[in-house]
Amino acid sequence: MAVKYELTKESKDTYARLGKVHTPHGVIDTPAFMPVGTQATVKAMSPDELKEIGAQIILGNTYHLYIRPGHKLIEDFGGLHGFMKWDGPILTDSGGFQVFSLNELRKISEEGVEFKSHLDGSKHFFSPEYVMEIEESLGADIIMAFDECIPYPCEKDYAKKSMERTVRWLKRCKKAHTKTDTQALFGIVQGGTFKDLRIESAKMTIDIDLPGYAIGGLSVGEPKEEMNEVLEYTVPVLPKGKPRYLMGVGSPDSLIDGTIRGIDMFDCVLPTRIARNGTVMTSEGKLVVRNAEYSRDSKPLDEKCDCYACRNFSRAYIRHLIKAGEILGGRLTTIHNLRFLQNLMKDIRSAINEDRLLSFREEFFESYGYKK
Amino acid sequence: MAVKYELTKESKDTYARLGKVHTPHGVIDTPAFMPVGTQATVKAMSPDELKEIGAQIILGNTYHLYIRPGHKLIEDFGGLHGFMKWDGPILTDSGGFQVFSLNELRKISEEGVEFKSHLDGSKHFFSPEYVMEIEESLGADIIMAFDECIPYPCEKDYAKKSMERTVRWLKRCKKAHTKTDTQALFGIVQGGTFKDLRIESAKMTIDIDLPGYAIGGLSVGEPKEEMNEVLEYTVPVLPKGKPRYLMGVGSPDSLIDGTIRGIDMFDCVLPTRIARNGTVMTSEGKLVVRNAEYSRDSKPLDEKCDCYACRNFSRAYIRHLIKAGEILGGRLTTIHNLRFLQNLMKDIRSAINEDRLLSFREEFFESYGYKK
Repeated sequence: MAVKYELTKESKDTYARLGKVHTPHGVIDTPAFMPVGTQATVKAMSPDELKEIGAQIILGNTYHLYIRPGHKLIEDFGGLHGFMKWDGPILTDSGGFQVFSLNELRKISEEGVEFKSHLDGSKHFFSPEYVMEIEESLGADIIMAFDECIPYPCEKDYAKKSMERTVRWLKRCKKAHTKTDTQALFGIVQGGTFKDLRIESAKMTIDIDLPGYAIGGLSVGEPKEEMNEVLEYTVPVLPKGKPRYLMGVGSPDSLIDGTIRGIDMFDCVLPTRIARNGTVMTSEGKLVVRNAEYSRDSKPLDEKCDCYACRNFSRAYIRHLIKAGEILGGRLTTIHNLRFLQNLMKDIRSAINEDRLLSFREEFFESYGYKK
Repeated sequence: MAVKYELTKESKDTYARLGKVHTPHGVIDTPAFMPVGTQATVKAMSPDELKEIGAQIILGNTYHLYIRPGHKLIEDFGGLHGFMKWDGPILTDSGGFQVFSLNELRKISEEGVEFKSHLDGSKHFFSPEYVMEIEESLGADIIMAFDECIPYPCEKDYAKKSMERTVRWLKRCKKAHTKTDTQALFGIVQGGTFKDLRIESAKMTIDIDLPGYAIGGLSVGEPKEEMNEVLEYTVPVLPKGKPRYLMGVGSPDSLIDGTIRGIDMFDCVLPTRIARNGTVMTSEGKLVVRNAEYSRDSKPLDEKCDCYACRNFSRAYIRHLIKAGEILGGRLTTIHNLRFLQNLMKDIRSAINEDRLLSFREEFFESYGYKK
């Protein structure tokens, strides 16, 4: 089996749990945050640096890699692992989210989706079967089923129609997927913010019997309370023995609140994207290091952080680099933000282990400046 | 004394020599190539990576650092060493070249040069005294005197007038320079491509008695043969006991041909600039890795190179990164080009040591594809 989830501890007062996801390329301690490497690179980072900040798994984006350089080329280089020289676990999404979010003019049918390349406008068609072929070429340890992501807000009628089609597509994905010994296919629960649709979707998805389940279509504009509600009625439907992945979510508060509601895996481009724009996450909250107030600040980005940037450089220097458009600026803030999240997940895991996740949440929200 | 040059070997059949430049922050084996860190960072590189590729000294650009973030700010952070956390030797130029090359509207007088900032158009004035003040704030181990760089071609009358003024400015620099115990002031020989002016300039410059001498105003558009001629009649005028620095020169052929003519130190932005655009230097010549012909090439950039990029990644992957505008692409090509030049300088030093520099030149030019 390509992926085996080992549940090591259940929290006493929340739905949080500790576990290990065993994959052909190594073990992931969960709950885990997964940095996103859209184009076969986590932006600004080398594989060595990803190891150094403690990443145990990274993401690749099927849509982007299919468009450029092409999945067949990557397959010829030993898949994503061989191409980008990352020897740890990899997860690829299905391209579903990008096909819907980057393409105004996509045409959706029962068969699949026709869309235009964001690079050259050329026409392409993704079916569940073709996406499986692409993801098999990319060779990730965990591959996501092809789904439809609906916008927020969305009419219930459409949300239901779409959710049911996503379930039919999932069945086709499972049928088309051949490399079951080295790759684990995860299904994605959809249904917008409609309780009955989410529960129905979850039930139909777990009926297909897969090594892991994701919750998709969240963090697309809905209030955080609504996302948390969806988790509260969806996660309990999912089996305990399989990992649960909340897609596209990575703000510190959501990582804690998702964990409390039973989520094991998270990913998000935000930590790396805001980093390159000069915003970092610190133990005392968000810090826009490109602001003038840091121009003479000799402190590190975060005095409590142990990353390469914080061990060596001042806010003043990093601000200078960002203002001057220097590559090293975005490198240092990216290293920091990713390390910050790895350390946060480690702290979350310790808190679960010691049954003090709720008080950890209180303290973290207080020091980060979140409303409790 | 801030800088001491130790001549360790003179070549038998050329003017090349081996030596060591001792500075407050370490020793530089010469002949040496110095990577350029214009804005307090060698573009795309971290200080650790600079150590790893073997850089023993780096440059900072006084003009850029004066404009942003300002020399006083850098002084407050312990100078360039403290600000950018590079603990090895640093050399700063005088801003002369930038004031003349980036400013169409500068106004030159005996007192100094008025120019406009390339960032916001604000007016500034550099005099030899003020440049010494700025360079003392930056705190480099070697600081360059404020000089005028004339264009190529240039009328002899103007070249003479300018060269004589540069000598007068050098005297003012020496008088204004106070930190002689920690910083070595180098004078710059000018005179365009006029033999008598160059020789006159060299004699007047060495009369001022400084710890090192540079040859400026070359590689500004003149044919390579002409540059080599200038070196042939200028270098012999310079004293053997002081280091000789050829400014702004860093192509592989010029490094070899400059060394043969008695040069000890070189710098150039080209290796890092072409790297970010996807061009690398290899043992078999220049390679434009962004070209389509490398899209499926599994070889490293250079099979004979030992850098991080060549030890780990294929041309195909690096091409993909460059085409996709990914930061890691420019990082890997920069690491490679800088390592390539450090290895070249090491090979040059070995060849001098074994009195086979001319045959080394033959072999290198042959394999690199240069005309001999």
